[in-house]
Order: sequence, then structure tokens, then C-alpha cells
Amino acid sequence: MAIITLTTDFGERDHFAGATKGAIYSELPDVKIVDISHSISPFSIPEAAYIILNAFSSFPKGTIHIIGVDSELNEENKHIAVKLDGHYFICANNGIMSMICAEIAPEKIVEINIHDAIITSFPVLDVFVKVACHIARGGTLEVIGKVINTIKPIKNIIPFVNDERTQIIGHIIYIDNYGNVITNIKRNFFEKVQLGRSFEISARNKTFNKIYNKYSDVVDFSKAPETRNIEGHRMVVFNSSSYLEIAVYKSNPNTTGSASSLLGLELMDTISVNFLKE
Amino acid sequence: MAIITLTTDFGERDHFAGATKGAIYSELPDVKIVDISHSISPFSIPEAAYIILNAFSSFPKGTIHIIGVDSELNEENKHIAVKLDGHYFICANNGIMSMICAEIAPEKIVEINIHDAIITSFPVLDVFVKVACHIARGGTLEVIGKVINTIKPIKNIIPFVNDERTQIIGHIIYIDNYGNVITNIKRNFFEKVQLGRSFEISARNKTFNKIYNKYSDVVDFSKAPETRNIEGHRMVVFNSSSYLEIAVYKSNPNTTGSASSLLGLELMDTISVNFLKE
Amino acid sequence: MAIITLTTDFGERDHFAGATKGAIYSELPDVKIVDISHSISPFSIPEAAYIILNAFSSFPKGTIHIIGVDSELNEENKHIAVKLDGHYFICANNGIMSMICAEIAPEKIVEINIHDAIITSFPVLDVFVKVACHIARGGTLEVIGKVINTIKPIKNIIPFVNDERTQIIGHIIYIDNYGNVITNIKRNFFEKVQLGRSFEISARNKTFNKIYNKYSDVVDFSKAPETRNIEGHRMVVFNSSSYLEIAVYKSNPNTTGSASSLLGLELMDTISVNFLKE
Repeated sequence: MAIITLTTDFGERDHFAGATKGAIYSELPDVKIVDISHSISPFSIPEAAYIILNAFSSFPKGTIHIIGVDSELNEENKHIAVKLDGHYFICANNGIMSMICAEIAPEKIVEINIHDAIITSFPVLDVFVKVACHIARGGTLEVIGKVINTIKPIKNIIPFVNDERTQIIGHIIYIDNYGNVITNIKRNFFEKVQLGRSFEISARNKTFNKIYNKYSDVVDFSKAPETRNIEGHRMVVFNSSSYLEIAVYKSNPNTTGSASSLLGLELMDTISVNFLKE
Repeated sequence: MAIITLTTDFGERDHFAGATKGAIYSELPDVKIVDISHSISPFSIPEAAYIILNAFSSFPKGTIHIIGVDSELNEENKHIAVKLDGHYFICANNGIMSMICAEIAPEKIVEINIHDAIITSFPVLDVFVKVACHIARGGTLEVIGKVINTIKPIKNIIPFVNDERTQIIGHIIYIDNYGNVITNIKRNFFEKVQLGRSFEISARNKTFNKIYNKYSDVVDFSKAPETRNIEGHRMVVFNSSSYLEIAVYKSNPNTTGSASSLLGLELMDTISVNFLKE
Repeated sequence: MAIITLTTDFGERDHFAGATKGAIYSELPDVKIVDISHSISPFSIPEAAYIILNAFSSFPKGTIHIIGVDSELNEENKHIAVKLDGHYFICANNGIMSMICAEIAPEKIVEINIHDAIITSFPVLDVFVKVACHIARGGTLEVIGKVINTIKPIKNIIPFVNDERTQIIGHIIYIDNYGNVITNIKRNFFEKVQLGRSFEISARNKTFNKIYNKYSDVVDFSKAPETRNIEGHRMVVFNSSSYLEIAVYKSNPNTTGSASSLLGLELMDTISVNFLKE
């Protein structure tokens, strides 16, 4: 039984997500539909790219992922379908796929060309659902599009390293539900530049020289709980998706504050890592 | 396999939606449950009416729609089940169905009367689920209620036209996830009054004399991107459900602002269309 | 076909819930996954405890409930699986289960010990999913953990009664989507202490001496609607889960205000009930 996932900026209240699910079941009564997220910030391509990149690979091969963010068709925003690592992605060619494609080479990309028969102002419902159901029934990409070789990039996916390899400049690409700020510096990349050297990570006017493997490693369990003083503790961690992340231990953005609010860090802000001489 | 949809004001956090889904699966292990929305504003009948009207018809015929908004049973708020266009709706008789019924004549309406055996302060779980499962098993409406002929209306569904047919007065009935404001003036209705005439649309102290067919039609793609100056561009469009909508191109209510916030437009505000002499 | 439910603080936007669902379908293509809530406040154990307690029993026996709140493994936060009333629960031993276990005695508790083979910073995905799928395939708890007899408690589950039994002191344990405040005083408990006496309920500087059975019982339907003056009416009710709740009739926290905002009541605030001499 095919699985179709949905990642959109439709929000939790509007009828768009419900209507999309209804249209899929109307074509394929036995499919499984999985909501990944409908709360992408409106038109936020970097957020959508980060979410789908970190969710897709948990699904079985053959899963079809519909991404409904900034999907209105126009001459600068064509629709594409991509096969990559055994998964299928259907979205606008607006940069959303460039983050995944920077990690894994796509097997095939087509620009969807079934639009001649479809006039629509709701392309997820009228185009993406049709393409997804075509793929779920075993159809090939060539039937619904023409093969292309490149897709539109987004900026600042890859962090910058200076020529002397003493510094990495990264950016904040996502702020999660706990207010933790996630950079584009991945563990593999970091370790290749680090080569075992000590380092200092700078985020605004705060510096760190240690990276934890999990959040509670910041706690000294040998101390009695009431003497630990870890409330609001700032820390750097490689998160569960292997990104360098600035976090606050057990933060709740609505009450105690978070890494984002307490350190004044926002999307696209710069994070630098300076490696120290031996 | 039957489909049961849920449209409620339970919110995303409380246990009500989860408990309702559990109760359905307890009666019917093989049913498909689809969340349309649990984020209807508390007790907002117009919002619920707009959402279910614009979501239901994408689902296959035979789908059963539970609407859990203002559903507490009392002498002025009876429970009904409606068959309309091959779909079933279960809700309180509080106006939610009047928007759909204004577009499509219902085939049958019953006032649910299985309550004698049920004392409940959670009618969606204890009454609506029972009725939905009864219908999903092929049961008829007459078994769970007595046929009635009229339902409670809500105000301001139909826009007003003056006798000279030179003016339409509409209202804002919904503000969507992007902050776009949606009026009760539908394309068919507009065009029948317009008869090809020029027009001026007034919303608060802003006027428009053009209606776009999709959002990106406001962009002049012949200009270089950096010279387009479309950030925050106000526009009028017939949206994907054919309602006249005042929008801001690619608006994000949390950052750039939206039609609602930038123009100061709120639910039930008046929008007027004046048709010009030839 | 097994049912696996999810109750987490992952939020509606992040990839965590989607990735978890993908991992389950990768192991068990035919399982049913039901979202109970992903909007538990970050790290809020009392909220999670209240939600799962009031949702689980609507599901069929045999349902497996994953609770992903404060689940990072460390020496003070072990992972457990609990069998109770025919249902299975998988979570951290951080107090979440103590509210359910105070009402229904668990049949079996194991401390999960499959971690030797798993290094993870995403335990819901890497540990809880594995345990859930093991149970769904008919596996026993002893295979994935060692039996233990007690779990970590949370404070203030049970309200306090004075020796003279003239007063109950309770706490606010949850504030729901409508802003109604829910105490830890359940109807059975209340009635056993009350023994038919009159009473006065005090919440901050407001008192009540009546408890309604449903919200609209506060309305006097014999009066004409425009003379009823029930907007913003404060009231006490036993809610659909039998908790004593301070409510505002048809409240919308975003517009008219709610019991929480209008009365200034917050989580863990004290509510007292004084019983009057005959």
C-alpha cells in the first residue's frame, strides 16, 4: 500500500489540507496519508527544506512526498517531481529540493507538464495530487513531465571555511519547537575541518568551547538535584539530525525562554567556529 | 472502507480529538479517520461552516463528516444528521449547515433522537461517533432521528445587491492562514451583477479596480526581480474556492503582515463593490 | 490491526512527529497510527499525564501509546513500558504514568533495556518505536525490559482534605483549549467528602456555590435570548472527564477571554472547597 506524505504551509485551521486528503482518497481509497507538517511558516522555503530533509528518510522506500509551499505555478516557479534514494518528491522548483539534493544525488528530475489540461489556483489539489496518485499506481515520471538536470538552489546551505581552515562561518537555518537554534554546520563537516583541534563557537556575544552529544550531558548527576543550577543552561549540541545546535536545557519558549529568545538569535544569523592553534 | 472526517474547535493540545478517534476505532476497526481541522476558533460557527463547505466535496461520496463545534445538547441546540450530495454531516443545528445548504439542497435532514439512552457532557464522543458508525455500517438516518425540513440559518451568508444593481455589499466571512480576508461574494454572483461593467471595490479606506485570477498574476515577470517592488503588494483575487478575497502577495502574518493586519480588516467587516456607468 | 498512538511535545511544525510515523510504517506497514497530541507544552509532564489519562480509555484494548515528553535517556530518566487495563504505554519514567497508575493498578511495568545496541539522541524514534512495534507483533514486555514494581510519582495528584473533613484543597492541573481551568478534584472524591452538604468554592477572589452538570445549564432558556446576559458567565462544572472545572460559558481565549485570563488563574494555583455546617 502506497504512502503519501504532506508537508505544507496550509496551517492547522484552513480547509486546504483536509481537501487535499479528500482528493487523494477519492483517487486511491487504499493509500496511507501521513501529515508531516502543515505549520511551515508561510512561504518559508528554508523551513520546508529542513523539515522534509529530516523526515523523509524514516519512511519506507517508495514513499511519495507532496510539499505544498509556494507552489503557485508561474514562469519562474515550475512544478517538478524528483526521484531520490527511492523516494519521490513533488513540489515547486523554488529551492525546496536543493537541501536534500546537496546531500544525495537525485536519480531523476522531471518538470511536470500535465498542466495544459488543468487550470487551477490550488495546484497541490489539482496537480500534485494527480502526480502523486499516478506514481502510487506505478506510473513513471516521464509520463507526467520532461526530464531536466538541474534545480533551483537556495543560498547558504553550505557553511563557509576560510583558506587557512581556521574558521567555519555558518548560519542559523531553523529554530525548532523548543526554541533551539539549528545551524547549517553538520557533524561530519565540522570534524573534517576540526581535525581534533580545540575551538571556540561564537553566537552573538556568547561563546562556547564544548559540544555535547545529548542535552542531559550538561547535567552533573553526582550533585544533589537542588544544587545543580541547570535551569536555563545554554549549551551546544549535535542534534538528532547531526546539526550543530545552540540549545537551552529543557527550554520552553513560552515560559522560561529559549536559546533563540535568551540569546537573541534569529534565522540566518551568523555562527562562527574558530579553531585554536595547537 | 468508510471515511469519517473530523472538523472541531478542540484545538491541537487537548485530549478530545484523540479520544474521539479512539472511540471510532473501538466501534469500527477498519474505518479511515481524516482530520480536517481541530483549530476552528472556539464556538465559531461561521468558521466551521466555511471550512466544511470548502473541504467536503473533495472527499468521495459516502464520506461521513463529524463537526464538533458548539455541540452541547440543549433545547435550543439539537443534534442533526444531514444527507447532501451523497455526503453525510453530523453536527448541532446551530447554523453550521446553513452555508452548505444554501448552495446544495439537502436530500434528507433528521433530528437525532437516540439521546434517551445517553447522558453525556461530551456529545461528539458519545452521540456523534455512534451516529457516524451507524451510517458507516450502512444504517439509515431514519433509525437514529426523525425527519425535519428546515435547519437554523446563519446571518450574512448572501451578499446584498441594491435595487439599481449598481452596488454589492458583502462581508468578510473568513481570514485564512496567510491573513488573506475572504468575503461572501462568489465569482458567479459577482459576474451576474457585473454584466461586464468596470467596478471599484472598497475595503476600509483602500480601493481596487481589478480582480486577479491567481496571486502571481500581480507580478510583472518582464521586469528584473530586484526592480519589481511587489513586497506587501495588496490585491484582489478570486481564490481557489471562487470567493472574492483581498490578499497580500506572499504574506506572512508573523513577519511582513497580511491583508488583515495591514488593511485593518476583521471578520464581519463590510466590503462594497460599486459598478460604474458605461 | 494494531493501533499506535502518539502524544508528544514535538509541536506541529518540526519533523520529529513525521519522522516517528515514517519509522513505524517502515517496520509495520499495516499499523494504524493516531495522533493524540503533539502540542503538549515543552517538557510538561503534568499536561502529558492529563492528556493521555483522558484519551487512552476510548481506544480498543491492545492499543499501544507512545508518549514522547522529556524522553532523553539518562541515569535519572529511564525508559519504561507499562501494561495497564489491556493498554500498553511507552515513555520515560518521569512521572507521566503516575496519574494513570493512581486510578488503575498497572498489570506490569518493565524498565526498557534494549539500549545497549542503540546510541541515540532521538529516543522516541530509535527506542520507543522499536518497543511499540515489538508489542504490536505480539512480543512480550519481558523481552525488551526487566520487571520493576514502582514508578516515579508526580506531586499534587491527589487533593488534600483536612481532618475535620470540612475543606478540600485542590490544584489547577490543566488549562484547556477554551481557557477553562481544570482541578485535580474529581466528582467521586468530591461527593464522598461532601455527603450532601452545601459548599463554597474559592478560586482567587471569586466564589461559587453551585456545580453544573453541563455548560448550557447556566442558561435560563425561559428568558428571551437578548435578555439572558450570559456573555462571559463564570461557572463551575464537572467536565466530561469528571473533573471539577472553572469555566466561562462559550469562552474564546482570543476574543472574549476565558476562565484562566478573566479570573487570573494559572497552573498549580490553589482551589479550595469549604463545606458548610448543616
